[in-house]
Amino acid sequence: MRDFFSPSLSSMFSSVIPDCDPTISPKLYHICMAPVSVSIYQVPRGRLSAPTLVTPSLACSPANFLEEEGNRGLVAAVFGILFSSLCVLVLDKDPLPLVAHSSQTACSLWSILRILALLYYPAFYYPLLACATVGHRISYLVGCLLSWCHCVVHIWQKVDCPQSPKIYRYYSMLSYIPIILCLVLLSLWYPALLIRSFTGQEETLSKEVMKIHRVTRGFQIPLKLILSITMAVIAVYQVALLLLVAVVPTIQIVRAGMTKDIVVLLVQFGLVPSESPAVPGDMEKELNTVKYYLWSLEVCYICSLVLCCLLTCAMLLRTLVMHRNNLKALYQGAVLDVFYKAHILRPSRQAIVCWMSFAAFQTAFACLGLLIQQVIFFICSVGFTFLVVIPLQSGTNTYLFKIIQNMWPFWLTLVVAVIVQNLAAHYLFLEHHSLRKELTNRRALYIVTYLLFPTNVLVGVLAGVWRMVISGLYNAVHFCQLDISLLNRGVETFDPGYHAYCHYLKIEVSQSHPVMKAFCLMLLQLARPGGPLGLRASNVEEGETFPLPTGGMHGHRRGAASGRARWWLAYTLLNNPSLIACRKTALSDPTANGTQLSTCKP
Amino acid sequence: MRDFFSPSLSSMFSSVIPDCDPTISPKLYHICMAPVSVSIYQVPRGRLSAPTLVTPSLACSPANFLEEEGNRGLVAAVFGILFSSLCVLVLDKDPLPLVAHSSQTACSLWSILRILALLYYPAFYYPLLACATVGHRISYLVGCLLSWCHCVVHIWQKVDCPQSPKIYRYYSMLSYIPIILCLVLLSLWYPALLIRSFTGQEETLSKEVMKIHRVTRGFQIPLKLILSITMAVIAVYQVALLLLVAVVPTIQIVRAGMTKDIVVLLVQFGLVPSESPAVPGDMEKELNTVKYYLWSLEVCYICSLVLCCLLTCAMLLRTLVMHRNNLKALYQGAVLDVFYKAHILRPSRQAIVCWMSFAAFQTAFACLGLLIQQVIFFICSVGFTFLVVIPLQSGTNTYLFKIIQNMWPFWLTLVVAVIVQNLAAHYLFLEHHSLRKELTNRRALYIVTYLLFPTNVLVGVLAGVWRMVISGLYNAVHFCQLDISLLNRGVETFDPGYHAYCHYLKIEVSQSHPVMKAFCLMLLQLARPGGPLGLRASNVEEGETFPLPTGGMHGHRRGAASGRARWWLAYTLLNNPSLIACRKTALSDPTANGTQLSTCKP
Repeated sequence: MRDFFSPSLSSMFSSVIPDCDPTISPKLYHICMAPVSVSIYQVPRGRLSAPTLVTPSLACSPANFLEEEGNRGLVAAVFGILFSSLCVLVLDKDPLPLVAHSSQTACSLWSILRILALLYYPAFYYPLLACATVGHRISYLVGCLLSWCHCVVHIWQKVDCPQSPKIYRYYSMLSYIPIILCLVLLSLWYPALLIRSFTGQEETLSKEVMKIHRVTRGFQIPLKLILSITMAVIAVYQVALLLLVAVVPTIQIVRAGMTKDIVVLLVQFGLVPSESPAVPGDMEKELNTVKYYLWSLEVCYICSLVLCCLLTCAMLLRTLVMHRNNLKALYQGAVLDVFYKAHILRPSRQAIVCWMSFAAFQTAFACLGLLIQQVIFFICSVGFTFLVVIPLQSGTNTYLFKIIQNMWPFWLTLVVAVIVQNLAAHYLFLEHHSLRKELTNRRALYIVTYLLFPTNVLVGVLAGVWRMVISGLYNAVHFCQLDISLLNRGVETFDPGYHAYCHYLKIEVSQSHPVMKAFCLMLLQLARPGGPLGLRASNVEEGETFPLPTGGMHGHRRGAASGRARWWLAYTLLNNPSLIACRKTALSDPTANGTQLSTCKP
Repeated sequence: MRDFFSPSLSSMFSSVIPDCDPTISPKLYHICMAPVSVSIYQVPRGRLSAPTLVTPSLACSPANFLEEEGNRGLVAAVFGILFSSLCVLVLDKDPLPLVAHSSQTACSLWSILRILALLYYPAFYYPLLACATVGHRISYLVGCLLSWCHCVVHIWQKVDCPQSPKIYRYYSMLSYIPIILCLVLLSLWYPALLIRSFTGQEETLSKEVMKIHRVTRGFQIPLKLILSITMAVIAVYQVALLLLVAVVPTIQIVRAGMTKDIVVLLVQFGLVPSESPAVPGDMEKELNTVKYYLWSLEVCYICSLVLCCLLTCAMLLRTLVMHRNNLKALYQGAVLDVFYKAHILRPSRQAIVCWMSFAAFQTAFACLGLLIQQVIFFICSVGFTFLVVIPLQSGTNTYLFKIIQNMWPFWLTLVVAVIVQNLAAHYLFLEHHSLRKELTNRRALYIVTYLLFPTNVLVGVLAGVWRMVISGLYNAVHFCQLDISLLNRGVETFDPGYHAYCHYLKIEVSQSHPVMKAFCLMLLQLARPGGPLGLRASNVEEGETFPLPTGGMHGHRRGAASGRARWWLAYTLLNNPSLIACRKTALSDPTANGTQLSTCKP
């Protein structure tokens, strides 16, 4: 497109951005930081882990970052850095900064580097995650230093070189904003953790164990869902940014470089209305019209992009609400309220695979959903602008109005036919009794059906068009929602998104049932005779009832405790019928008790 | 396009069809036949109806054509004529043959004529339907004469003028084939009815009444559904014919008129590969390539059209199967097997309107579904041919293969990642007990989840594309099926097609429950003391049990009959629980018995 414009303009837009090398080049940064990361890998197991008194399985481990009771914001921030790095990586010419890129690099080698980068980045940022989950002062300190280091380098690089020639001069900087924000969050979170570990709250081991199994009131959104929603929001930002900077500056360049010669061409093709004959010298009005059209195009594009982003975010919020309802229903055993067919809620190979990839799927679907919505809404808004708004403003190009005007008898007939049928159905063919309605005047009904058959075929064509439009729009708007199947209810699990969600739910429900959590807590209390008295295990989940006595169990005689435990069991099963299914199996299996314990292990 | 070709070729294709006036012009035909139709309207009520002994409501009426027990084939044929006339009418320049068309006719007047035609044709063909339902010799004779007359005129017109300049020379003739076939069916059906009324089976009035309430074994597809499927098949024929003749002859013309000058242009645009420089004199090979491409395009078009037609017909057959299952389930009261939410199956305004327009909707949806499928399948088949088949044959244009070749590390990574996750889930993260599986190795699971997150995002993008493709394809293929909603189960009734089907089902089930039919039959037997003894009311519907004694009820004492009736009632309600809901209402309503009678009135 740029060939159309004058050389000065073309050069103004393409060569104004000089090549810029930041003081700390990405290669230097990675060469310095990668060994640091690798060295930290070796430390936690030996030196950083807390001195353990409880069983090894209960000790804090750097790999526990996906447990429910962790530093949720911190984990989400690290995943956010990871995803933003992936976005940068897909479009970057240097996928792996450790290896210098040269123009001679073969295409296949380049894509191998890109794939290595897919594994390199998670490993590179892993220490940021591990330092928080180890739960010790030294690890917090290391985390502080690491996050500050990463943060300073990234900000420095972007201050050094705010512009880059890639896509749009500020694209590189804007696409790094989520990474920098996440790093800033980490740089504040780690000092806070460190300070809290020094002042006031000298956490003893027992308290730490209790914190793992911290019991909080109200509904807890699973960490995996928080991750997936955060990633989806970042994905929406990255895709919207890319869509914006790839198109809007181009339209602006075209508008600025529009000349009268091009306008003459457009007028001759009939794309722009003109009253005067096409003479290049006298095209001022037409030039303004073309510029106005291009401006309208830009407005349409930006408006539809804003609409898409808002819609996608609204749908992501809706996912949270639906997920809460689904989890509550499943905890209470109402499987058929959530799934169309009965499911057994237990881990399986597929369920684990789907659980692992759930957040990634949610992210990818948000990206694709935004793209699809943008295409659809942009076409619709352009159609609306150029067929309705501009003709109404200028009085030209009134094709649509002419068509509608010529077809008024057709529309009138259809409306009259529908109204007549509704009125006839209500007053003529329906006999209203006190309690029920009955069909009457059958002969007239048959005759009306026959006479209006051709008209109804035309009504049917409109209904069919509406069917097409509504199903397309519905699927486009709900594309980012994994908890909704885009297919009919009989075949809904063939939808890969919904399939992943269903299996993800199975793992979530089977591994985080609030009653099971409370049971684990009780067992832990029993295991430690010096545990705190007067602890009250509150209700973890709305709608669940699991009363525990105000005093710990260790003070009671064995017989009284046994009777009370039986009563609790009956009461619990009454309120949580979904547990009954698991019970017999668990009891018949000799290793079941151990299993139950292992499932609530950190 | 035709301007590109030599004048001789252009003239060969456009002006070879002379204007043709058939001996019996459409105007003459309609001027003669319309008064005949109108005169027949006056007759049936007075002269043609059978001498009545039973109550007037039981008399045969010309308007009973949509009763279940009619001449189903005949009714379908008349609706077929009507729909084909509508197809002809939409594209014809003379919508209403009674009014002569002139070039001065205003556009809006013309569309008013078109709308008048929508009501004129049903009225014009109504006698063909009415003569059969009156059920008398004279009416059969009139029907014979009418159908012969229509049939002969139509065949004569098409023999006189087999070609017309509209769209394609034989289009007019081919589009009239369904009308002519339906008229031939009528011309054979009426004589058969007439002969049967004379020979052997001298039908007495009582027998006629019994025939109305004829009881047949096995499942009876409702007449309305037969109509809708027949119309849909005719619609598929008409749309496929239009799609075929609008495109294929044009491609053939373009192929025949392809010259070396155009080939040079195509080579310069890079659309056709060429080894030699673009010189018009030496383009023999490239010309053949272009012709081969055009031929491939034609083959793709025809293949996808055939596939669409087969798929649409298969889906229409599937509709029949699903409808049978739905009806059986609803008769047995299993509402939730059919609908996602509980529905009350009784007539309502909406239900009557949907029942009236059901066949028309099915027809319109079949048309639109075929169009959508053709667009999708044509694009897919062209893509497959030009990106896979032709490059494999010729070795040129191998863009797709090059892309796939360059991206092999990417595909390999994704496949390996998915396999690794599945294997790890099965062997590493899942503990197999005797009765249940349990999650284990949680730390490794978390680390794998974190490390594979960027890879899983890419897997998710592929899954998202698959979600888009499968939902689009599913909706396109099932577009013609009204018994399937294209929306998610929570909002499925927003789909206008499924909404119409649900309401249609309500009327069908509430008005044609087999037990109610058997009950009506019993009442009719009781009303006529001279009725045939030994009649055995068989089971109308599979899965229903409604035993009647071998002897009629009139021979029994009142007490015994009452006891037996109670036993029947209990037995019937036991086997048909869906009737229980209606029972109390019916009993509490004083007019309920009359209503029940009126609902099974012919």
